[in-house]
Amino acid sequence: MTADRPIIRLKPKVQPRAVRHGFPCVYDNEIVTDRRTKALAPGTIARLEDAERAPLGTVAVNPNSRIFARMLDRDPDAVIGPDWLRARLEAALAHRARLFEAPFYRLVHAEADGLPGVVIDRFGNVAVIQPNAAWAEVLLEPLAAALAGVTGVSTIVKSASGRARGLEGLDDETRVIAGTLDGPVPVEMNGATYMADLIGGQKTGLFLDQRPNHAFAARLARGARVLDVFSHVGGFSLAALAAGATGALAVDGSAPALALAEEGATRSGFSKRFATRQGDAFAVLEALAQEGAQFDVVICDPPAFAPTKKALEAGLRAYERIARLAAPLVAPGGYLGLCSCSHAADLDRFRTACTRGIGRAGRGAQLIHTGFAGPDHPQHPALAESGYLKALFYRLMP
Amino acid sequence: MTADRPIIRLKPKVQPRAVRHGFPCVYDNEIVTDRRTKALAPGTIARLEDAERAPLGTVAVNPNSRIFARMLDRDPDAVIGPDWLRARLEAALAHRARLFEAPFYRLVHAEADGLPGVVIDRFGNVAVIQPNAAWAEVLLEPLAAALAGVTGVSTIVKSASGRARGLEGLDDETRVIAGTLDGPVPVEMNGATYMADLIGGQKTGLFLDQRPNHAFAARLARGARVLDVFSHVGGFSLAALAAGATGALAVDGSAPALALAEEGATRSGFSKRFATRQGDAFAVLEALAQEGAQFDVVICDPPAFAPTKKALEAGLRAYERIARLAAPLVAPGGYLGLCSCSHAADLDRFRTACTRGIGRAGRGAQLIHTGFAGPDHPQHPALAESGYLKALFYRLMP
Repeated sequence: MTADRPIIRLKPKVQPRAVRHGFPCVYDNEIVTDRRTKALAPGTIARLEDAERAPLGTVAVNPNSRIFARMLDRDPDAVIGPDWLRARLEAALAHRARLFEAPFYRLVHAEADGLPGVVIDRFGNVAVIQPNAAWAEVLLEPLAAALAGVTGVSTIVKSASGRARGLEGLDDETRVIAGTLDGPVPVEMNGATYMADLIGGQKTGLFLDQRPNHAFAARLARGARVLDVFSHVGGFSLAALAAGATGALAVDGSAPALALAEEGATRSGFSKRFATRQGDAFAVLEALAQEGAQFDVVICDPPAFAPTKKALEAGLRAYERIARLAAPLVAPGGYLGLCSCSHAADLDRFRTACTRGIGRAGRGAQLIHTGFAGPDHPQHPALAESGYLKALFYRLMP
Repeated sequence: MTADRPIIRLKPKVQPRAVRHGFPCVYDNEIVTDRRTKALAPGTIARLEDAERAPLGTVAVNPNSRIFARMLDRDPDAVIGPDWLRARLEAALAHRARLFEAPFYRLVHAEADGLPGVVIDRFGNVAVIQPNAAWAEVLLEPLAAALAGVTGVSTIVKSASGRARGLEGLDDETRVIAGTLDGPVPVEMNGATYMADLIGGQKTGLFLDQRPNHAFAARLARGARVLDVFSHVGGFSLAALAAGATGALAVDGSAPALALAEEGATRSGFSKRFATRQGDAFAVLEALAQEGAQFDVVICDPPAFAPTKKALEAGLRAYERIARLAAPLVAPGGYLGLCSCSHAADLDRFRTACTRGIGRAGRGAQLIHTGFAGPDHPQHPALAESGYLKALFYRLMP
C-alpha cells in the first residue's frame, strides 16, 4: 500500500540532520524538484528520503506552498488513514483530559501534536477544525470522523480563518461539516461563562490560549476595579469578576464581541458589575485618562501589532504606546497586564517596549509574572522559540 | 538632617540615563573616587549626583564592593530611617497579602521591592532576613524592628547564606536576632506541609520560588507515579502527593534534607505513598534505568550548574545530561519537568540543552509549559533579563 508512494528527496547539500532531529518542515528550496514533484497534487502523501536515498519518514507535500513537505510520521511506511488519525487524536485527548476537568480546550495544536498544520479547539460537544495545510483539507472527512469517534463531539465546524490557508492555496469557506450549530456556544473557563461565536468570530471564537493569564489576572482582582482593553468577548474581565472584582469595564472596537461579552456576563450573573465601552482602544485609553479614571487592575490584550518581521519596529512602538497610555490609569500599588500575540516580537523585545512605556509614563514598576499560552497549546521543541503569546504583569509602585 | 550627607558623583563620561531610568546600581568604575569616597564606611547613606552636580537620588555606598552605590530612593533628601523602612515593607506586604491566603512567601525580593540587597522570607510567625548589602547590615536592627511591626512576626533570623555577602565584605554568621526558634518550621504550600530548617538549611530553608512550578507539576500528578530528583525537602513530591499522586520517590544527596522531606510527608499524611533514596542524582538516575523503573511524572531540580558565565558551557552539558538520563524513566505519554536556577544559562540556552538531551534519549516530546519564579519574587524591570529560575515541562510522546 505504501510501496507505490511518490518519493521526494532532499538536495545533496541539505543536511538531513534537522529533519532527523525532529524538525517537522521541509522547504521548497531544500527539495529536488522536477516535473514529477511539481505535478503532485496538494496534500499527497509521500516518502521523504535524503540525498543518499535513506528514508526519513512519511510526509505530506504541497507544491504550492513554501513548506513543501510536512513530517507526518518518522516511519516511512506509515499508513495515514483512520487508525493513524485516531491514534494521534487519542494521544492529544489524553493530555487535555489530564489537565482540564471540563471539555473546553485546544485539543490539537498542529506540529506539536503530530498533526502538522491542524488546529482543533473543543467547546464541549462542538469542535472547530482549522485545516491549515493541504493534506488536512484532503483528509478532512476521515479526520472529522475520527474526531467524532475519539471525543464524542456532535457538531464539527471547519474554520477557514487561519492566515496560513492562503499560503497553502486553500479556500476561505467556514462551515458546519457535522451536526448543527445554533448561535454562540457557552464555554466554562475560570469560573465564568463565555459566549463563543464559532462561525463569525475571531480565530476559532475564543482565545483559549489566554486561559492561564486570565487566571493569573483574576488572582489579583479580588475587590478590584478592572479595566479590560481589547476585551474581545471579555476574557480577562469575566474571569476577574468571577474572582471577586468589584467592577470591570471591557473596551473593544467590535460591537459584536462586546455583545457576546455582555451575554457572558449576564449568564455568569455578573451583569451588575460589568460595563462595556466600544471604541478605538488608544482613544479610549486617552479619554479615560482625561476623565481621571483609576483602576486597580488594567489589562491590555491587543491584536498582533508585529505579526511579521517587517512590522516589528512599528509593532514595538505600538506596544510601548499602549503601556504608556495604560500606566496612568493604574492606581498606586495596582497591576498592569500587557499581552502580545506577535510572533515577530520575542519576549525580550516585548518586555523592553513595555518597560519603556511604563517608564515614560513616569511610573516605577516591578515585573511580577511572565505567562505564555496554556499547556493545551504545546510547542514542538524544534519550533519552541516561536512561542507567540506573551503576557507580562507589572505592579506599579505605590 | 540630609544636608550634611556625603556626596558621590558619577564620572563625566558616565551617562546618568541608566540611573535616571531606574537602573538601581552604580559600579565602582562609574564613580569619581578620591581619598574621601574610599574612606566612607560600608553602608553609608549618601547623595548621588551626576557629573554636572544634578542630584540623582539617595544611595547606600560600599567602597569594598564592585557595586559602589545602590539606589534607595529617587528623592535625594529621603531619610532612610524607621518610617522609610516601614513604608517599603508595607508596600511589599500589600502585594503578598493579595496573592496568598496564608503567610508563607518571599516578602522582600531586593531591588524589585525597593530594598536593594535585602531578601526577606516569611514562614508564618518567623521571618528570615538576608542582608546581602552592607547598608542592610548596618541598619539590621531598625529593619528587624520595622519587620516585626509591619508583619507581626515574633521570631527573626538573620541568614548569612547569601553568596553576595562575601563580595560585600560581610560576615557569614547566621543567627536568631529576635524571638526563639525550636527546630524546623512547618510551612503550608500547595496543600502539603513542608519542614523548613531556617538555620542549617539551603538558602533560607525552603525554595519558595518554585511554588507555581510545584503547583503545575501537581496538576499533572493525579494518579501518577512521581520521581522527584534533587528533591531537597520534597518540594515537588509533596505537592504531587497532595494532588493525588499514587506514589512519589524523592532523591537527594543530603540525608538531612530527605529527613525533613519524610517529616513533611508524615505531617501531611502522605508517608505511605512517599519514599526516599539518598545518593548522587546522576548515579541514581542511571541505577533506576538499569532497574527498568518507569514514572508518569519525573522532575529534576538540580542546584545551579551554571552559576557564572565561566561555568556556562559545562553547566549546559550537565543540564543536557540530566535530561538524557531522566527521559528514559518517563513512561509513554508521561511528563518530564526540568529546572534551572542558573543566572548564566538563559531560557533559550537551557531549553536547547534540555531538548537535545531528550532527543539523545530517543524520545519525541512536546514543550507544554515554561514557568519562572512566583509573583512573590518580582523582578526589577531594569534587571528583568536576569530571571534566574526556569522550569520547562515536556510531555514525552506515547
